[in-house]
Amino acid sequence: MRMSNLLMPTLREVPAEAEITSHKLMLRAGLIRKLAAGIYSYLPLGLRTLQKVEQIVREEMDNAGAQELLMSALLPAEAYQASGRWEVFGPSMFKMKDRNDRDFCLGPTHEELFTQTVIDSVRSYKEYPMTLYQIQHKYRDEGRPRFGIIRSREFIMKDAYSFDLTEEGLDKSYQKMYDAYCRIFNRLGLDFTIVDADSGAMGGSGSQEFMVKSPIGEDGIAYCDDCGYAANYEKAECIPQEKPSPEGDFDMEKIHTPNAHTIEELVSFLNAEAYNFAKTIIYKADDKYVAAMVRGDREVNEVKLKNLVGCVDDLELAEPFMVRQITNAEVGFAGPVGLDIPVYVDKEVAMMKNFIVGANETDMHYKNVNINKDFTPTEVADIRTIETGDVCPKCGKPIKTAQGIEVGHIFKLGTKYSDALGLKSLDETGKSKTVIMGCYGIGVTRCLAAAIEQNNDENGIIWPVSIAPYHAIVIPVNSKNEEQSEIAEKVYNDLKVKGIEVLLDDRNERAGVKFKDADLIGIPVRIVVGKKCGEGVVEYKERTAENAVEKNIDDAVNDVVEFINNNR
Amino acid sequence: MRMSNLLMPTLREVPAEAEITSHKLMLRAGLIRKLAAGIYSYLPLGLRTLQKVEQIVREEMDNAGAQELLMSALLPAEAYQASGRWEVFGPSMFKMKDRNDRDFCLGPTHEELFTQTVIDSVRSYKEYPMTLYQIQHKYRDEGRPRFGIIRSREFIMKDAYSFDLTEEGLDKSYQKMYDAYCRIFNRLGLDFTIVDADSGAMGGSGSQEFMVKSPIGEDGIAYCDDCGYAANYEKAECIPQEKPSPEGDFDMEKIHTPNAHTIEELVSFLNAEAYNFAKTIIYKADDKYVAAMVRGDREVNEVKLKNLVGCVDDLELAEPFMVRQITNAEVGFAGPVGLDIPVYVDKEVAMMKNFIVGANETDMHYKNVNINKDFTPTEVADIRTIETGDVCPKCGKPIKTAQGIEVGHIFKLGTKYSDALGLKSLDETGKSKTVIMGCYGIGVTRCLAAAIEQNNDENGIIWPVSIAPYHAIVIPVNSKNEEQSEIAEKVYNDLKVKGIEVLLDDRNERAGVKFKDADLIGIPVRIVVGKKCGEGVVEYKERTAENAVEKNIDDAVNDVVEFINNNR
Repeated sequence: MRMSNLLMPTLREVPAEAEITSHKLMLRAGLIRKLAAGIYSYLPLGLRTLQKVEQIVREEMDNAGAQELLMSALLPAEAYQASGRWEVFGPSMFKMKDRNDRDFCLGPTHEELFTQTVIDSVRSYKEYPMTLYQIQHKYRDEGRPRFGIIRSREFIMKDAYSFDLTEEGLDKSYQKMYDAYCRIFNRLGLDFTIVDADSGAMGGSGSQEFMVKSPIGEDGIAYCDDCGYAANYEKAECIPQEKPSPEGDFDMEKIHTPNAHTIEELVSFLNAEAYNFAKTIIYKADDKYVAAMVRGDREVNEVKLKNLVGCVDDLELAEPFMVRQITNAEVGFAGPVGLDIPVYVDKEVAMMKNFIVGANETDMHYKNVNINKDFTPTEVADIRTIETGDVCPKCGKPIKTAQGIEVGHIFKLGTKYSDALGLKSLDETGKSKTVIMGCYGIGVTRCLAAAIEQNNDENGIIWPVSIAPYHAIVIPVNSKNEEQSEIAEKVYNDLKVKGIEVLLDDRNERAGVKFKDADLIGIPVRIVVGKKCGEGVVEYKERTAENAVEKNIDDAVNDVVEFINNNR
Repeated sequence: MRMSNLLMPTLREVPAEAEITSHKLMLRAGLIRKLAAGIYSYLPLGLRTLQKVEQIVREEMDNAGAQELLMSALLPAEAYQASGRWEVFGPSMFKMKDRNDRDFCLGPTHEELFTQTVIDSVRSYKEYPMTLYQIQHKYRDEGRPRFGIIRSREFIMKDAYSFDLTEEGLDKSYQKMYDAYCRIFNRLGLDFTIVDADSGAMGGSGSQEFMVKSPIGEDGIAYCDDCGYAANYEKAECIPQEKPSPEGDFDMEKIHTPNAHTIEELVSFLNAEAYNFAKTIIYKADDKYVAAMVRGDREVNEVKLKNLVGCVDDLELAEPFMVRQITNAEVGFAGPVGLDIPVYVDKEVAMMKNFIVGANETDMHYKNVNINKDFTPTEVADIRTIETGDVCPKCGKPIKTAQGIEVGHIFKLGTKYSDALGLKSLDETGKSKTVIMGCYGIGVTRCLAAAIEQNNDENGIIWPVSIAPYHAIVIPVNSKNEEQSEIAEKVYNDLKVKGIEVLLDDRNERAGVKFKDADLIGIPVRIVVGKKCGEGVVEYKERTAENAVEKNIDDAVNDVVEFINNNR
């Protein structure tokens, strides 16, 4: 490709709209442009990489025996009404009416449709096991789209669904996808971690996430370097860590704590430690209200709480007016004593003595509170979020934590959708069985951003060869110099003939601009044709190398071919 | 691919929902399934062909120097409001609001977005000419989706847009697309006709459609075998054909025509010929009303009328209550005499004498009406639709007519969108120029259906090799016979190694079922491994051949390879 013909609007300035590296670089390198909040178009270089990611995903899915099909993105409401998700998705589902006033939505994920396809198409138990997938646009009206294509409202997902007649079959189908995912993310050049994930809310029996560790990741990961344990925060079991409590047999006492609404304010006002407090937080779980208690230095894990409470749809912080009504106090003074709603207590709180809680009265707290003496928990369970300083629930060694970008998710769905929609099959003995499903997603567009987050330097993107939009770039230092132009042209053609996807920077730009652009767009290897080209010498430089190396032309061409073929 | 693993739900029965051959066959061969009116999913065989069509389109677009990018399908209203098309598309645009109450739509076509992309990305006149394209889902809420994927509400389109600084540049860009389209449709195995199309309404300067002739086509084509002229009905110029009128110098006379609302009823009631009448039809053009007159045996061409009237948005039949108000009569008795709205008269009507028209009074007509004596036309012009019996406007020989499926459209847009959105560029002399655009569409999904309409027999689809989901199929007559299975397996592997995309029908089905399925899904060549396989003999049959031929195994394999490679 001649760059004089390439739509590649690189930017020297960092666009104000971007907060994170990948987003900045995707804009600066001219890979994407924003059309609306969370909605992007892909320009030629971005699309080429996207298509390569898609192709790698497709090849590995096919190799794993999955079959590709393509659903509509525009879907009739009935599909989601049958499973109840028409309501569950709430405002995150784009909904509309057609000209005949029928309800439609843009598919956020396609469990129902694949289930229905199998109901309609499969006639014999012999056709199972079966894994179907598609690579397709998905739509979620995120409340806070951000980080470019990492959390966007339109995105491309590979979603796959397995259909089995037995649990063992599901285990095998799941393992095939696990293996395929490892191959895919390796081929994409991603350094990833596989973590155990929560599967409770959807009623499944097992779930793992493929995470790319990154400070900008929105998911917390707990992992243990000693035993290899890894789980996301929702799933990671917290072993209670005891902290000193005031010793003694005290009676509960109401204390005046004017204007102390937060743990920090209380700590300073009462000259205590955060771990001497127990926070009481009021949640709305579906249509009822519950209280959750964790130690003052801990955070409630809402997924654990949601599963514990048996909440089906939404768990969210109670509205302030409801907090006032339930506690008879301003927000910030909730406590368990005398509270008329279920109180779920974290295991660590159950180890505390003589602790401090809100008094359900504005500007008042209780101190010297003790469980079962001053109030009775509805249930004691692990409802907090793991953090650094915790121990590995598997081996007891110190746990580490990191942030991760979720690029893949595999999930043993069980019979949630086959039950809801009626997907059954007679087995070989003539017995009717509910088909057991798994679902498997890859955030295809998100993988691009994750790859950039992991592969960049101060000059720009460093594409892994497998997904680089072009493998190599040939730069004549001075495009007006006839000799340089001719030799650059020859190198360009030689590389093309040898199967290398190559750019020729034939633009009438200063050499510095060309070098900067080549680095910014992350082409894995470049050949610079300069003054010495008359002597048969050019410069060879891999994107990650410190310095360029002079080589004779044929060697340079051969080295490019070898480098690319070794890293495809 | 082993067919025991293939999701291929073929149907023996013709589905009731399908009216036309391609739709029936796509359902019967398990290529698509309906999700809602005009919305389909593609099953594995359908998707493979779709991807091949896409790839051919992509290759030829790239070869023509066009650059691929990918826009969002979900688009903010602003893009279409600036061009005025937010209103123009009317109920055929899927519209919705996001969670922040902002207006969005599903893109029906992307002129505005590509124009905006060029405004945002191109900085120098040196970057022109430029042609950009995408292959992407489009959405139109058709009032009457029908014929399967021929007129659907979600479909895949290749849309391209060229950007030039001069008219000559546009001509060149247009010609490149013309040539690329010829190559594309040839490679797809389509027998197509290129017709001149109307470009008036959009303000362009030239337009052609690529039509696949088919009785189920929704577009009329007029063509001349003598001189090669071809145009669609909207564009085809009608040379007035005179018919005998009653001779004499009569005065207009009101006659009673009870219950005669149609030309047929009048012809029989008055014992006249249809060509002795002039029909007067009331239209609503944007927000005003006009009358159009054509001879009783002719039809009004609404596109010609729309252009003549200068209607910007919609031209449609006037509402019955407005017809009653304008004519003071029941519907069916409109006439030009005394009518208080503009009257547009077809050239043929202007040649008539002493003709019959409605009297603007229920159950009454006028006879012996003469133009300029009894009423004065607003304008006389060609506003009728061409038909068999007309003459070629170019050479005067008899014209032929046919129905066509529009698979491609190329259009010199001019500056409609660059004016509306402000796409200008300084040229090399520093003068500001409005960029001149062309737009070029291919109905990618529609091409599949068109290919089937043109390539089928009573047994099923006959795929052209270039877009067949698989090239070849190997069928062991009896899958339980070990020798047949083994040899079939060997042939299957041999063909795979030689780069043939091959199916192995390893299903435990009767031979008849396998043969029927192979024909139905249209695989170009098949090898049947039967009783003689022990002697090294198998049957070779191309899908279009009358009979199978016995060959020894190696010859059969080589002949498949040769046949496929010659027809790719």
